[in-house]
Amino acid sequence: MLQVNVELKERSYPISIGAGLLAEPVSYHPLKQGDKVMIVSNPTIAEHYLATVTSTLETLGCVVDFVLIPDGEKYKTLSSLDLIFTALLEKNHNRDSTIIALGGGVIGDVAGYAAASYQRGIRFIQIPTTLLAQVDSSVGGKTAVNHPLGKNMIGAFYQPISVIIDTETLKTLPKREVSAGLAEVIKYGAIFDLAFFEWLEQHISELVQLDQSALEYCIQRCCQLKADVVARDETEKGDRALLNLGHTFGHAIETHLGYGNWLHGEAVAVGMLEAAALSHILGDLSEQDVFRIEKLIAQATLPTISPDGMQPEEYLPYMWRDKKVLSGQLRLILLKSLGSAYVTSQVTEQQVIDAIRRFTQQ
Amino acid sequence: MLQVNVELKERSYPISIGAGLLAEPVSYHPLKQGDKVMIVSNPTIAEHYLATVTSTLETLGCVVDFVLIPDGEKYKTLSSLDLIFTALLEKNHNRDSTIIALGGGVIGDVAGYAAASYQRGIRFIQIPTTLLAQVDSSVGGKTAVNHPLGKNMIGAFYQPISVIIDTETLKTLPKREVSAGLAEVIKYGAIFDLAFFEWLEQHISELVQLDQSALEYCIQRCCQLKADVVARDETEKGDRALLNLGHTFGHAIETHLGYGNWLHGEAVAVGMLEAAALSHILGDLSEQDVFRIEKLIAQATLPTISPDGMQPEEYLPYMWRDKKVLSGQLRLILLKSLGSAYVTSQVTEQQVIDAIRRFTQQ
Ligand SMILES: NC(=O)c1ccc[n+]([C@@H]2O[C@H](COP(=O)([O-])OP(=O)(O)OC[C@H]3O[C@@H](n4cnc5c(N)ncnc54)[C@H](O)[C@@H]3O)[C@@H](O)[C@H]2O)c1
Ligand SMILES: NC(=O)c1ccc[n+]([C@@H]2O[C@H](COP(=O)([O-])OP(=O)(O)OC[C@H]3O[C@@H](n4cnc5c(N)ncnc54)[C@H](O)[C@@H]3O)[C@@H](O)[C@H]2O)c1
Ligand SMILES: [Zn+2]
Ligand SMILES: [Zn+2]
Repeated sequence: MLQVNVELKERSYPISIGAGLLAEPVSYHPLKQGDKVMIVSNPTIAEHYLATVTSTLETLGCVVDFVLIPDGEKYKTLSSLDLIFTALLEKNHNRDSTIIALGGGVIGDVAGYAAASYQRGIRFIQIPTTLLAQVDSSVGGKTAVNHPLGKNMIGAFYQPISVIIDTETLKTLPKREVSAGLAEVIKYGAIFDLAFFEWLEQHISELVQLDQSALEYCIQRCCQLKADVVARDETEKGDRALLNLGHTFGHAIETHLGYGNWLHGEAVAVGMLEAAALSHILGDLSEQDVFRIEKLIAQATLPTISPDGMQPEEYLPYMWRDKKVLSGQLRLILLKSLGSAYVTSQVTEQQVIDAIRRFTQQ
Repeated sequence: MLQVNVELKERSYPISIGAGLLAEPVSYHPLKQGDKVMIVSNPTIAEHYLATVTSTLETLGCVVDFVLIPDGEKYKTLSSLDLIFTALLEKNHNRDSTIIALGGGVIGDVAGYAAASYQRGIRFIQIPTTLLAQVDSSVGGKTAVNHPLGKNMIGAFYQPISVIIDTETLKTLPKREVSAGLAEVIKYGAIFDLAFFEWLEQHISELVQLDQSALEYCIQRCCQLKADVVARDETEKGDRALLNLGHTFGHAIETHLGYGNWLHGEAVAVGMLEAAALSHILGDLSEQDVFRIEKLIAQATLPTISPDGMQPEEYLPYMWRDKKVLSGQLRLILLKSLGSAYVTSQVTEQQVIDAIRRFTQQ
């Protein structure tokens, strides 16, 4: 088992990473005899893991309830939140109860916000079961639900008391979801850590094949990189924005196609390539490094080209609407070199279009 | 104008108290030219004060929108919250926007929780317009909405950036609501401050008649007492519980009658008398002091006796369900003397019944 600590003073917490952790009582520290727990999950995930989590917690002497919300991003809503509150109240959960999120980013975001809000805040444990959730959404304390007029518009910064990552849960995850998670993994290397990027170049096929020890190391490294940036900038006023490499381009793709056609990670993969191409146009990133990113993305079985027919000019209106646009300037995360990202608003529309065109079908 | 500072390090904020503040641009500091503001209110209050607040903010150059939720505790819900989010999104409010709560405790609680949650937290200003909100709910950062299965079950600790108390707004408030607010005022004296209790004995009729300078002093004193306890105990893990003097008894009355029949402050008034009687039975508070509290409550035109037909034994089941019950022990706030409260679980049911009986119709 590997471990990462997220350092946030009195709100610090550990992330444990290993194969088979769900079945080990010690993973659930500090839960103990008599503690009340509400597991939040969805039917897809519950089928695989609810019994294991429940029985392990019962071994510890915890009193375990659960509530399932329907599977899918479209249920990341205030209504699902209300379902959770109703379950908590019906089962007489009080301020000493703990919510456990068992699932991907959707479950983690909704359950985390429920924990932040129930009686103004109860304890919260993340058990992320998608690669994206393991390397990204379960770490850092951002919780949210969507509103019909905007994604992630309602939420809280609320830290869990621990994160339990069982790498074996990825075995039941659809391959396409694994690849989508790898897009965020590659992102960490590109933004922060050349050595990790090089490690990924060596081990990408092991990751695709879910080699457990490669996964453990990879997830630990990503969690450490995210934990570091969160410790520096908990509420996303500075550095933490670098995590959005490729995301402004990616959101344009997601919105253009309608959410749910491409996975978020797939759109981010192409977005990263476009950001890399733009960094090259600005004279920072070498041609060679753009190729390295492209090759790694392809090996992760992610798309390397814009969706059918989407033209460079079609990105712009979406990009301008992005919340990272500050006082009328397009703000983008770009690369100075592999392993080093920065924020800039010094790019022209023409440069953005040229960068996108490189990854567009003609 | 009088001022109180709530000292919470980087989240400290000022409370300004004075007659006519709503019409003075300087009250709205730090809002300035170009700032976007969403006023949350209800139709009853908007009729009296929305135009003044809006035009004063427009004088400053702010861009002002508003959203009204229906009047009443029963609209303190997730649905009203959603109305506020929709208004914010429809009018393109972003992370730099400010929510202003213009109203009583219901509006303050809902709008505060909306501010805590919108894009994970935007700026928030309280303009309380009931006496209860001015001396209690607008100070301290507790925000919440109700759930069909429990009051204030969903919310956040979220501090405003300032509180603006215009004592003239009390002129349009129904007299019964003024008296209900006075119950909380008397509570501060009884819990924390004998000198203030004595001041109240001297000035209670001026307060009932809404003498503006008496109100200013009184509200300042209450806000100071609450600010002190909040600074010591922001998230209600200790001292802050003392503010619940009379509330366990009071909640029993409110629940027994069905919420909305007696005002909260009316139930708290009788609850305080019962707590005082119990303190006397335990040998702490003198008979004379119980009389002084009773007299002050009567002068504030508040009830001094349990509602028609409610018997002492009928209080108990509600009191046991109160969230202040910890591990099976009834925990009550009682008085050592006038101006000094403490928490205890050393009371017998019989003592509780005897205390209640003293203020029950036979
Ligand atoms: N809070 C943050 O910091 C943050 C960061 C990034 C993304 N997010 C959010 O995360 C969400 C996306 O998360 P996601 O990619 O995990 O999607 P997801 O939660 O929808 O999970 C993807 C699919 O995989 C299924 N699934 C999950 N684990 C499984 C397993 N082990 N076996 C079989 N099936 C499994 C789910 O039921 C779902 O159908 C978005 O809502 C996004 O906004 C949040
Ligand atoms: N957050 C806290 O710390 C805290 C503390 C105590 C109470 N509360 C909450 O406060 C709420 C009760 O607040 P309240 O007593 O102010 O009730 P309220 O907000 O319902 O207001 C009472 C009535 O007076 C009307 N009104 C308000 N200001 C007026 C004015 N100036 N002129 C004319 N009419 C006016 C309102 O429209 C309403 O009909 C409860 O929901 C309670 O849970 C919160
Ligand atoms: Zn992402
Ligand atoms: Zn009260």
